[in-house]
Amino acid sequence: MEVIPRIDPPLRTLLGPGPSPVHPRVLQVMALPVIGHLDPAFLRIMDESMEMLRQVFQTKNRLALPMSGTGSAGMETCFVNLIEPGDAVLVGVNGVFGTRMVDVAQRCGAEVDTVEAEWGAALEAEQFHAALSRRSYKIVAVVHAETSTGVLQPLEEISRLVHARGGLFLVDAVTSLGGAPVKVDAWEIDACYSGTQKCLSCPPGLSPVTLNERAVETVRRRKHKVQSWYLDLSMIEKYWDSERVYHHTAPISMNYALHEALRGVLEEGLTSSWQRHRQVHEAFIREIQKIGLEPAVAGPIRAPMINAVRIPPGIDDARVRQRLYDEFNIEIGAGLGPLKGKIWRVGLMGHGARVENVELLVHALRQLI
Amino acid sequence: MEVIPRIDPPLRTLLGPGPSPVHPRVLQVMALPVIGHLDPAFLRIMDESMEMLRQVFQTKNRLALPMSGTGSAGMETCFVNLIEPGDAVLVGVNGVFGTRMVDVAQRCGAEVDTVEAEWGAALEAEQFHAALSRRSYKIVAVVHAETSTGVLQPLEEISRLVHARGGLFLVDAVTSLGGAPVKVDAWEIDACYSGTQKCLSCPPGLSPVTLNERAVETVRRRKHKVQSWYLDLSMIEKYWDSERVYHHTAPISMNYALHEALRGVLEEGLTSSWQRHRQVHEAFIREIQKIGLEPAVAGPIRAPMINAVRIPPGIDDARVRQRLYDEFNIEIGAGLGPLKGKIWRVGLMGHGARVENVELLVHALRQLI
Repeated sequence: MEVIPRIDPPLRTLLGPGPSPVHPRVLQVMALPVIGHLDPAFLRIMDESMEMLRQVFQTKNRLALPMSGTGSAGMETCFVNLIEPGDAVLVGVNGVFGTRMVDVAQRCGAEVDTVEAEWGAALEAEQFHAALSRRSYKIVAVVHAETSTGVLQPLEEISRLVHARGGLFLVDAVTSLGGAPVKVDAWEIDACYSGTQKCLSCPPGLSPVTLNERAVETVRRRKHKVQSWYLDLSMIEKYWDSERVYHHTAPISMNYALHEALRGVLEEGLTSSWQRHRQVHEAFIREIQKIGLEPAVAGPIRAPMINAVRIPPGIDDARVRQRLYDEFNIEIGAGLGPLKGKIWRVGLMGHGARVENVELLVHALRQLI
Repeated sequence: MEVIPRIDPPLRTLLGPGPSPVHPRVLQVMALPVIGHLDPAFLRIMDESMEMLRQVFQTKNRLALPMSGTGSAGMETCFVNLIEPGDAVLVGVNGVFGTRMVDVAQRCGAEVDTVEAEWGAALEAEQFHAALSRRSYKIVAVVHAETSTGVLQPLEEISRLVHARGGLFLVDAVTSLGGAPVKVDAWEIDACYSGTQKCLSCPPGLSPVTLNERAVETVRRRKHKVQSWYLDLSMIEKYWDSERVYHHTAPISMNYALHEALRGVLEEGLTSSWQRHRQVHEAFIREIQKIGLEPAVAGPIRAPMINAVRIPPGIDDARVRQRLYDEFNIEIGAGLGPLKGKIWRVGLMGHGARVENVELLVHALRQLI
């Protein structure tokens, strides 16, 4: 076989559904020498990251830590730890990630019912009310920012309904965390997971997860072992907690990156970060409308960090995206499932949520459509 | 809360059970800008990494790819994909990782029997022969280099016995891959997993896995879905294969690192890497004997990359390890389970397997014991 050369990745402007552009200060710490997962210096990094995660999740939860996998591992973590075979679970489905939740919950042996909406629409609290009146659910799970559709799902009313019936409220905040308010305590979210590669300006590879005491107690009172050893929080929390019992070798460099990314978010200020995402999103909508493009999602439920844009009739979807790569080094995302060929997905996330990126992309699109 | 400063990890010489020292060229690529997981440039990196993994695993298997988690995720990948509820599984247990295999297999619903040996001893082929005469097993699983004891398990005879009875042979090569021969095809290993943070000189975070056609066929013929969505190879192979169907967002930077680490191993040459690990190991044994220390494992079954050293009577285990950190910036590992307080574990792995590290550690130990 010929010798494979060193990688030389192109310099892309990442304006797709993730990964988002990583802040240079985060890239820098990735190259720092690795230390051991039980080194006192690493244990301090873990403690600090937990403390910063609590701030970003807006929670006082003791359990707030990064799982050693991507966002989907965080989703699986919440389901495998909270579900036992035969448990009733209600999932809101209006995109890829709600659909994935159903699949994951079923693989845990749950009896899953769904509340559904068209892809691109939000779920209505009334639908949850109706479902919760028919049956009692151990867990009700909803995606906050549906990356596949660009919808930001209102959560507070659903949370009240779930708790009125005694259920646990589980929220996917993979794409929203850091880019829009995710108020775990104020909104009474019992379990929440996210990813590093969206609004935290960090490479993909870890999944921040937080559970409140009610959720932790549910894990503690399980009759059966968690079906995943790798994602078993009862063991993982002993490593992250003061006991420091070895579970698996933490991905050291990724944890360096998350630490620095969280520092960046908190240095800017969480509220400022939310505002920046909102402002850049509004600028984006204004600018695309000037070149005849339209957002695919209704105004009040648009996720600021992930924008669905209608592909105009007669435009070759794949060709435009390929030309954006080839001629402008810009990545945007394709539509998925029923939205394939109908929308583009433009992520303005984390370090990428800047007005100059809006200008760059709109300038390029103007030439391609 | 006070402002948390940027991390400043100490410069350790990592001579514990892993993570091992990461080669500077690997650290460098970690800091390269991130690209998307469907970027044509990333797809090429994936193809090249698969090709290099095949070489390192010494296999022609089509399926050879890194799972997006650490070595334990690779273990779980093999078990969740190959086991269906009620399957009979035989596991060799003579340390932490064999014990972990039992736990993982049981969580998959397997009926698990074990073949056991004292921690620090190897399993005997005769034991497998006896167990396989009593019962038929779908899978027989063995750890190659038991990181908790320093034993390198001979595999070829066990492989013959397993295949004579029609079972699948599953091998944990987390610690051995790259540092000692792991001949997947020649030894007829049906499924094998490893980690990046041992003899590949890469940070922890990915788990290379390979399955041969017989194992892949077993996954394909499953009656039930794989219980883990995140680790479901039937979906993951569609992303790594030519179909490129999105599954989860690959940890881009970690995949950069693995690509560069594999390049490093193949540039040195796999055989040269095995020889270097062997020679440095032999130098280590010679040098510790000069200062009155003894290896805890019998000569013929010593794993070259992970050395168990008997702690002499009257020596304060924890204090020596702490002083190695504090005064010499050296990490070595403690004993686990029944070997706690009885052995130190000295890893001479990957980039760390160099004579100067032997000299550095022996020089330090001479002053501390």
